[in-house]
Amino acid sequence: MPEDSRKRAARRLAIARGHLESIRLSLDKDDVYCVDVLRQIKAVQGALDGAATVILRGHLEAHVATAATRGDEKERVDELMEVLKYV
Amino acid sequence: MPEDSRKRAARRLAIARGHLESIRLSLDKDDVYCVDVLRQIKAVQGALDGAATVILRGHLEAHVATAATRGDEKERVDELMEVLKYV
Amino acid sequence: MPEDSRKRAARRLAIARGHLESIRLSLDKDDVYCVDVLRQIKAVQGALDGAATVILRGHLEAHVATAATRGDEKERVDELMEVLKYV
Amino acid sequence: MPEDSRKRAARRLAIARGHLESIRLSLDKDDVYCVDVLRQIKAVQGALDGAATVILRGHLEAHVATAATRGDEKERVDELMEVLKYV
Repeated sequence: MPEDSRKRAARRLAIARGHLESIRLSLDKDDVYCVDVLRQIKAVQGALDGAATVILRGHLEAHVATAATRGDEKERVDELMEVLKYV
Repeated sequence: MPEDSRKRAARRLAIARGHLESIRLSLDKDDVYCVDVLRQIKAVQGALDGAATVILRGHLEAHVATAATRGDEKERVDELMEVLKYV
Repeated sequence: MPEDSRKRAARRLAIARGHLESIRLSLDKDDVYCVDVLRQIKAVQGALDGAATVILRGHLEAHVATAATRGDEKERVDELMEVLKYV
Repeated sequence: MPEDSRKRAARRLAIARGHLESIRLSLDKDDVYCVDVLRQIKAVQGALDGAATVILRGHLEAHVATAATRGDEKERVDELMEVLKYV
């Protein structure tokens, strides 16, 4: 993976992890409100989407857009179609 | 939030946080493969969806299904419609 | 379903159907551009989401928020949790 | 768009349109059940996802995997990242 993508994605994941830990701690209090927790979880999912977007763009540039120059178009497209279900 | 929902959701969030940390560490290696990281991020998102499902069910049981007995149907439905965009 | 929800949802579905037909016709031309078709399909999905939102709100008001007054909380919550996977 | 993709996508859109019309007609009856309509709408969205998947694969094969041979990698990747928000 391109170094720039790795660093940017790692930074986003570190933020998401911190946020996740604070949500988990908030669940220790018995008066935490369900709807607030749902909103917080959604914010973490947005951060993970952001990290995935960074990685996907690096992947497209480094591996997919160049596929025909290496002759592995079929492998790269099959793999991408499968992974897009995961993004 | 019902205690059982809180405990179950907290457990899932703890697992998601551990998984997230291991993904972040994998990004330190320059030969990590983009597609593997995308799959791992998706797995964490699935775990977060699981935590949100637990919390949402507790919320529906404790606050929404009982709304007409308290007379706050409008507030609970408006709030739920808004939060469902977040689930 | 409340009459107002039915009418509003039906109107949105009629619009979505018309849009869908025009996309289908555009596929008869061999120079149609993939990315344009993907955008159009997404617009139809947005219209369907809009129809589903109208119906869901009517359902919450008419059936879920009133569940405790009838004693069918468990059935309504189970059913809603299942259908939310569909929204 | 490759002819095969166009024909397969058009067939799926025709099916989705027929399904959509039957849902719309079901909304004329005042005893239609909200949850059934939500399930039907979701089925149509699944059919549209199927059509989009066919088109996206054709696009990746014809335009993205070959980008480096034409030198338009940046345009194709930017466009794809934008359209993936639409799939």
